[in-house]
Amino acid sequence: MPLKLEPIQLAFLVCSFFIVDFSDAYLAPIAARLPLKGTPSPPGTPWPEPMSANFSISIATIGNRDSITFTSNLNNCSILNSAFNRYSPDLIFRDLPVESASGYPVFAGIEIILPSGIENQCGEYPRLALEEERDTYEKYELRVEQDSDSTVTAKIQAWTVWGALRGLETFSQLIWQNGTSNNFFINISQIVDSPRYPHRGFMIDTARHYVDIPVIETILEAMSYTKLNVLHWHIVDDQSFPFVSKTFPELSAKGAYLPELTYEPEEVQDIINYARDRGIRVILEFDTPGHTHVYRKSFPQLLTPCYGDGVNPGTPSPDKHAAYEILDPTKEFTYSFMKQLFTEIKNVTKDEFIHLGMDEVYYSCWQSSPEITAFMEQNNYTEYSQVQEHYTLRHLDMVKSLGAKPLIWHDPLEFGVNLDKDIVLQVWKKNGSDWAPYLQHALDEGYQVILSSPWYLNYIAYGETWREYYESDPVLSLPNITEDQEKLILGGEACVWAEYADPTNLVQRVFPYIGAIAERLWSPISTLDKNRTDDAMHRLDQHRCRLLWRGIPAQPIFNGYCFPQEKSIRRSSKK
Amino acid sequence: MPLKLEPIQLAFLVCSFFIVDFSDAYLAPIAARLPLKGTPSPPGTPWPEPMSANFSISIATIGNRDSITFTSNLNNCSILNSAFNRYSPDLIFRDLPVESASGYPVFAGIEIILPSGIENQCGEYPRLALEEERDTYEKYELRVEQDSDSTVTAKIQAWTVWGALRGLETFSQLIWQNGTSNNFFINISQIVDSPRYPHRGFMIDTARHYVDIPVIETILEAMSYTKLNVLHWHIVDDQSFPFVSKTFPELSAKGAYLPELTYEPEEVQDIINYARDRGIRVILEFDTPGHTHVYRKSFPQLLTPCYGDGVNPGTPSPDKHAAYEILDPTKEFTYSFMKQLFTEIKNVTKDEFIHLGMDEVYYSCWQSSPEITAFMEQNNYTEYSQVQEHYTLRHLDMVKSLGAKPLIWHDPLEFGVNLDKDIVLQVWKKNGSDWAPYLQHALDEGYQVILSSPWYLNYIAYGETWREYYESDPVLSLPNITEDQEKLILGGEACVWAEYADPTNLVQRVFPYIGAIAERLWSPISTLDKNRTDDAMHRLDQHRCRLLWRGIPAQPIFNGYCFPQEKSIRRSSKK
Repeated sequence: MPLKLEPIQLAFLVCSFFIVDFSDAYLAPIAARLPLKGTPSPPGTPWPEPMSANFSISIATIGNRDSITFTSNLNNCSILNSAFNRYSPDLIFRDLPVESASGYPVFAGIEIILPSGIENQCGEYPRLALEEERDTYEKYELRVEQDSDSTVTAKIQAWTVWGALRGLETFSQLIWQNGTSNNFFINISQIVDSPRYPHRGFMIDTARHYVDIPVIETILEAMSYTKLNVLHWHIVDDQSFPFVSKTFPELSAKGAYLPELTYEPEEVQDIINYARDRGIRVILEFDTPGHTHVYRKSFPQLLTPCYGDGVNPGTPSPDKHAAYEILDPTKEFTYSFMKQLFTEIKNVTKDEFIHLGMDEVYYSCWQSSPEITAFMEQNNYTEYSQVQEHYTLRHLDMVKSLGAKPLIWHDPLEFGVNLDKDIVLQVWKKNGSDWAPYLQHALDEGYQVILSSPWYLNYIAYGETWREYYESDPVLSLPNITEDQEKLILGGEACVWAEYADPTNLVQRVFPYIGAIAERLWSPISTLDKNRTDDAMHRLDQHRCRLLWRGIPAQPIFNGYCFPQEKSIRRSSKK
Repeated sequence: MPLKLEPIQLAFLVCSFFIVDFSDAYLAPIAARLPLKGTPSPPGTPWPEPMSANFSISIATIGNRDSITFTSNLNNCSILNSAFNRYSPDLIFRDLPVESASGYPVFAGIEIILPSGIENQCGEYPRLALEEERDTYEKYELRVEQDSDSTVTAKIQAWTVWGALRGLETFSQLIWQNGTSNNFFINISQIVDSPRYPHRGFMIDTARHYVDIPVIETILEAMSYTKLNVLHWHIVDDQSFPFVSKTFPELSAKGAYLPELTYEPEEVQDIINYARDRGIRVILEFDTPGHTHVYRKSFPQLLTPCYGDGVNPGTPSPDKHAAYEILDPTKEFTYSFMKQLFTEIKNVTKDEFIHLGMDEVYYSCWQSSPEITAFMEQNNYTEYSQVQEHYTLRHLDMVKSLGAKPLIWHDPLEFGVNLDKDIVLQVWKKNGSDWAPYLQHALDEGYQVILSSPWYLNYIAYGETWREYYESDPVLSLPNITEDQEKLILGGEACVWAEYADPTNLVQRVFPYIGAIAERLWSPISTLDKNRTDDAMHRLDQHRCRLLWRGIPAQPIFNGYCFPQEKSIRRSSKK
């Protein structure tokens, strides 16, 4: 039981947990200081008394609200400075008074130690760690230790600024309050921690419902508290085109729900920078050749005219296809238009990856079209999948020629399209609840993958749905996976398709449940197996309280409550 | 198709709708002025041009933000004055400028006309309408008509102040904005409207999670916009006892989650008054003899000691019962305690009904108990249901002797307990998705009933779940119901059990979906059948936008958007 730590062990602890949790021992992070509810552990017992003398060495008292100093050997690094500002007394203590407890060493501050020569990272954006960097890219070592002058300091050793950010988050989770004396303490402890997977993401859909920018920022905040590092922004779709293109302003002028419900490129870049400050990548998705009905409002010639009546172009066929569907792969205009659009997108995004969609290309419209038939004859194509492949490969090559790396949904593979092996596939399909064969298929074909199938948070259901999310392990679920294939798994992404989600319910729908997925993707497989879900419940519950403490309206995972301040927190973050 | 109204009909319209909806004609309430989304009607067409001359008689222009005067023949009625304040320019127009459109008669104001001699209602609380009052209790007639001096006024004729409140809400829904000129208009129209059922409720559970008082107030606000009239407050349960009893302060001192998470009796009465102002009754539920684990923390002697080990009292039996369960029906202390507690409750509540719970009394603990066996022998009982009956009847009689009317869950009927016919039963059970037999059973036994089985909003699921709520009709679902039995149906209640709901997600989980239930319970059966769900979708979508317009975070029912201001509304109601 990795969580049942005895206090004496804390001084020598080397561990790796997604969310640091000492509450099963005698110590707990602040948000979890109260007896916790219907959760299996701890068993609702009152908060323990102050430490007895023989344990006094293992904790340090926080002196006052402003006593935590933040320093780094990397001067003037905006990423670190911004983080130091975020982990403010208000975030950690809210409006609680902080007084030092007598008889304990006083905590002085936190020091970030980074290798020399990485100053340039402070001006860069986080990226997918290269295979050879994976052990260090987000790794940190956190030592809370007593110095010779008897003060206690926390030292975060990291190899990148992004690792330092993860260490800061863990540091903030180590501070706890004694429920009797109300003093704040931090554990003398050592933690060595790094993520299992380099890609731990969340997908938002701003086409079915517009998501206000402050809500996207709240999501990014909460993602950073949950050690997630990719926002996959499915920004446009059939329903609306809220991205304001400077090249083709008609796209949003005619395709956005309303002029007010759009994202200017500068706003997109502001969000990218907001994410960067938190060590989060933003991957923009512009889905083609399907999910493109919205283009028809401004550039009707982009879509394939269907022959629903068998005679006339632009006629629908009930239950089969609309009047126009799927980008027209026969026209050079399609390719030149997309090249111009993606040239602009490449300049807006800062991530090396662009998500190109490629999902749900159905053939019934193409099957009705004499133009497509002629195109197939001209190219010696006998299958519609070759038409799909024709578009797919040209589009992928074009985007690569712009210097971007393509990420796509795994549909083309399932439709038999031949793809280059440098294309990263996002696996989303399931057969009932069975998703493992799709993942195994992509791995068998040698692709790098990101798993999403078990993590569609829009499929809400009654009960502890996070358990199934938690128990979906990309490796443990594949009985025949090879060691080489394991290396092809880059991580996973939770997704919320927004038919029924918008700013009124999005944040609470995702948090804290996504924490179960974040832990699955962060913690080493050695500490996780499918039988430890009950242990995770307690951590997830603590994390929900921590999020609430920080003003995120994370919904409950079971009966109970968090802390005396929850009423006032909810009031101040509501009105 | 009752909703496809031609404008010429509007001048003579006599209708009865839950939510007034003219948007399928040429006019629409404010919140629905924009093309509406993926909904079946209207078909996404731009908002119609300003009225042509031959229709000009049918609408009146709103002069300026403060031009709507509210008057009544009932002077100094606090209920009405409070309502007049609520339906303020800010509620109706938010911060939009209002200018009169030239060429239209100007709307002057609204006049409430009530029978003389009902002044006393202004000092009373709404109640369950008596059978002979049901045609008039919440009925109103609303005439927007041109007076001789060419100004237009709205006249609400009602028979009670509660009916006047319903008319005011409809009035507020009749004002709409022209999307081109931005002028506001109101339809010249006549509406005669009254509810199908007198009890249209919503149950909150504040025991599994504490619900902040401002959130309860938000729920009451949104209920009044949805013409719901009963808040059923399941205030305590196994998990916690947040009600502060002055008679037995230990109950909340030891049973509330935290001292901060409680409701003082004065706060309960504030909520009752807040509800009264909106024509909403508040029924308090104190559930016994089951769901009472929390009493054990302060008064352990109230619960039946179970003999899980067959020998010792107060021992659990895994999967069967806890160490103590269910109020002990053998002890006089139980009855005298409850009499004292309910005497206090009767003084706190203003409704004639008190909900007594009585659900989920399982016998396994009693079966283990030699005391219960002795009690049965002493009373010549051969069935445990007789023990349940013993408690049930004594408790019901005691509560009746305090002058209250008991409302209970229908479980005792299902367990074979003989009840008086004046007990109102709330039907909640289902067998799979089949609830009709339970309702039919209660009706066959001659009880008045409130239906909840199909409307447990805590059982969330993906998709358009409101459709099933809408299609659950208490009469149309019972093929063998008699006319006399129809009269026994008092209405229905949506419920949210709060295992997974608290202030972070409760309002958005309930609204607007509960609107589908509200319409089912309000509108006359002649306008509703199970095939008109698609029609209702559009009204529900409008209602969601109306709620959002008024600052209620109602979640979306499908793809789309409401109005240009939604970002700023969400921002102002969030921070």
